[in-house]
Amino acid sequence: MSQNFPKLKNDLFLRALKGEKVERPPVWMMRQAGRYLPQYMELRKKYSFFERVETPELACEITIQPIDELEPDAAIIFSDILTVPQALNIDVELVPGKGPVMGNPIQNEDDAFAVIAEDVAEKLDHVMKAITLTRMELNGRVPLIGFAGAPWTLFCYMVQGEGSRNFDKAKAFLYQHPDASRHVMKELTKATIDYLQAQIRAGAQTVQIFDSWAGILSPDDFNEWALPYLMEITGAIKEVPVILFAKGAWYALERLSFKSGASALGIDWVISPEFAREKTRNSITLQGNFDPTQLLAPIPEIEKKAKRMIQRFGTQRYIANLGHGILPNIPVDHARAFVDTVKNYGK
Amino acid sequence: MSQNFPKLKNDLFLRALKGEKVERPPVWMMRQAGRYLPQYMELRKKYSFFERVETPELACEITIQPIDELEPDAAIIFSDILTVPQALNIDVELVPGKGPVMGNPIQNEDDAFAVIAEDVAEKLDHVMKAITLTRMELNGRVPLIGFAGAPWTLFCYMVQGEGSRNFDKAKAFLYQHPDASRHVMKELTKATIDYLQAQIRAGAQTVQIFDSWAGILSPDDFNEWALPYLMEITGAIKEVPVILFAKGAWYALERLSFKSGASALGIDWVISPEFAREKTRNSITLQGNFDPTQLLAPIPEIEKKAKRMIQRFGTQRYIANLGHGILPNIPVDHARAFVDTVKNYGK
Repeated sequence: MSQNFPKLKNDLFLRALKGEKVERPPVWMMRQAGRYLPQYMELRKKYSFFERVETPELACEITIQPIDELEPDAAIIFSDILTVPQALNIDVELVPGKGPVMGNPIQNEDDAFAVIAEDVAEKLDHVMKAITLTRMELNGRVPLIGFAGAPWTLFCYMVQGEGSRNFDKAKAFLYQHPDASRHVMKELTKATIDYLQAQIRAGAQTVQIFDSWAGILSPDDFNEWALPYLMEITGAIKEVPVILFAKGAWYALERLSFKSGASALGIDWVISPEFAREKTRNSITLQGNFDPTQLLAPIPEIEKKAKRMIQRFGTQRYIANLGHGILPNIPVDHARAFVDTVKNYGK
Repeated sequence: MSQNFPKLKNDLFLRALKGEKVERPPVWMMRQAGRYLPQYMELRKKYSFFERVETPELACEITIQPIDELEPDAAIIFSDILTVPQALNIDVELVPGKGPVMGNPIQNEDDAFAVIAEDVAEKLDHVMKAITLTRMELNGRVPLIGFAGAPWTLFCYMVQGEGSRNFDKAKAFLYQHPDASRHVMKELTKATIDYLQAQIRAGAQTVQIFDSWAGILSPDDFNEWALPYLMEITGAIKEVPVILFAKGAWYALERLSFKSGASALGIDWVISPEFAREKTRNSITLQGNFDPTQLLAPIPEIEKKAKRMIQRFGTQRYIANLGHGILPNIPVDHARAFVDTVKNYGK
C-alpha cells in the first residue's frame, strides 16, 4: 500500500518524538476519543462498542471528534488493545459495568499452546481501513498514532478472562506453566509486530505500545515476562517512532530508555519528572504524566498544575499528556483547560 | 490497664524490629488469619464478618489459628481497618463478591466537617478486649501486632463508598474540597492515635499502619495528603515499635525511613530489596516483600524464591513477609513452605 496522504500541517508531535527543537511541547491525551465527550456518547447510544471499533467510518469519526473539539497535537486511532486477542480466537465481550470478559480464556497448557499468530493483520483489516480513512479525513491537521497492547498486558486478559486488580490467575499461570506462558508471549509478540507494521503501512505515523499492567509485576518478573517482548517489538519497528508506555514500571525506566530502541517513554503520575529525567539521563522523549483524576480539580488548579508539570519536565524532548487514560467523568471544559494550558505555554 | 501477661518465649520479631542481632529473620504473613485457612472458613460459615471482628473470643480464636497451623514468629490481631470509620459513624457493610460498602459515604463538605473523632477507643473496646484475651491465650508463644489503616487509605473508602481501582471520587474530593479533606485527615489522625494507644494499653506489642492506597497518589499528593498524617501518628506512638506500610510509595522510602520515626517499613514486591536498602541506607528494619501470587507457584519454586529474597535483603534488620496480604486461593501447604523456608534459612 502506498497512499498519497494529505500533507502534514502540524508536525510538532513528530518533532518532539525525534528530539528536535520545538516552540512548545505538543499535547494529546490518552483515551481522548472517549466517553467524556458528548458527541462520543451520542454514537455510543446507536452502536455497540465493537460496531464502533470495527466500522472504519465510525472509528474515523470518533478519532477525529476530540481533534475538532479540543485541537490537540495528535490523533490516536479509536480501537482497543483486545483486538489482537480477538484475532487469536479469544472471544471478547464488553459487559456493561464490568468491562471486557473473555468467553474462552486460557485455562491450561493446551489452551496456551493453541494460541498461534496467523493472519493477524488480515483479520484486523478493519483497523487498517480505519487508519487509512482517518489519515485522509484528518487532512494533515495532526499526525495519527496507531497502537497495540503489550504481550504481558494482553496475556493478563487472555488468562484472567476479565479485568482484575491483581490478575492473580494470569500471574499464577506464569509460575505454574512457564513454557506454555513463553509460547503465548512469543505468539503475541509476533502478532503485535505484524499488526503494528500493517498499521504503519495503512498510515499510522507513530505507534504506541501499552503495557498497562506492567506495574503488578516484580522487577524480576518484568525482566523475564515483559521486557524481552517489548524490546523485540520496538526492535522490529523501524519505519516510525515508537512510544512505550509500561505503566507502573518505574524501576525499568533506565533499561527501557537505553535498550528498547523506543523514541519515547510514557510516564505515569507516580513517577516524578525529576526521577524520570534522571533515570533516562535526558536521552529520550518523555510523555506524560498528569494524574487523570486531577482533571476533576477546579480549572485554575488544572492550569497551575499543568504549567508546573511542563516546568518540571522541560519544554524539549517532552510530550504533554495524562499519566493514564482520561476518565469518563471529566468535564470537557476541564480537558480543554489542560490542552490549552500546554498550547499557551510560554506565550 | 496493666496486665500480667505470660512471658514472651519467642522474641525474634521484636529483636529484628529493634535492629538487634538475630539468628535468622523472623517471618509472618499479612492476612495470615484469613480465608486460605480451612479452620477460618469453618467459622465464616457460622458467623458474619462483623460478628467475627466484634466478638473478642472469635477474633482471638482466628488470630491464633495461623499460629497453631504454621507457627510464624508473630500474630496479628484479627480485625479490619474499617473499624475506625465505623467509630466515626460511617456505616460499613460487607457485600459478598464486592467487598466493603459504606452506607453513608462523605459526599460533600458538610459530611466531611461532620467527621469528629470522639470516644474512638471506647467505641472499639471490643478490639481491645480481643487483644487482651489473645495476649493471654497466646501464652507468650509469639508477640501480638495491633494495627490501623492510615488516614489517606481510610479517607479513600469513606469518600469513594466502596473499593475501587483508582478511587477517583476520593481523589477528586481532595482537589475540590481541600479544607474539608484536611479536616477529615486530622480527625482520622486523632482517631488513629487514640485507637493505637488503646491497643497498646490492651497488650499490642507492636503496631502496623497500613496505607494500602498510597500508591495511587503522585509523590506531591503523597507529601501533602498522606505523609504528614503518617508522621504525626508514628511520632505519637512511643511505647512500642511501629511498622509503616505505605504500599506503592517507593518514591517515599527515604523520607519514611529518616523522618517518620517508624521502626520498620513494609516493602511491596514491586520494590527490589536492593532499591529498598539503598534508599533507606540500611538504617531501618525492612519487612516484605514476597509477591502473594507467587505462593501459587510449585513448592520448590516458592522455596527457591523465598531463599533468594532473604539473600537479597540480608538476614539482619529484616522481617520476612509477603508484599501484600495472602490471597484466599493459596493452598495451606504453599503458605507453610514459605514460612518454613524462612525458619530453616541458614540451617
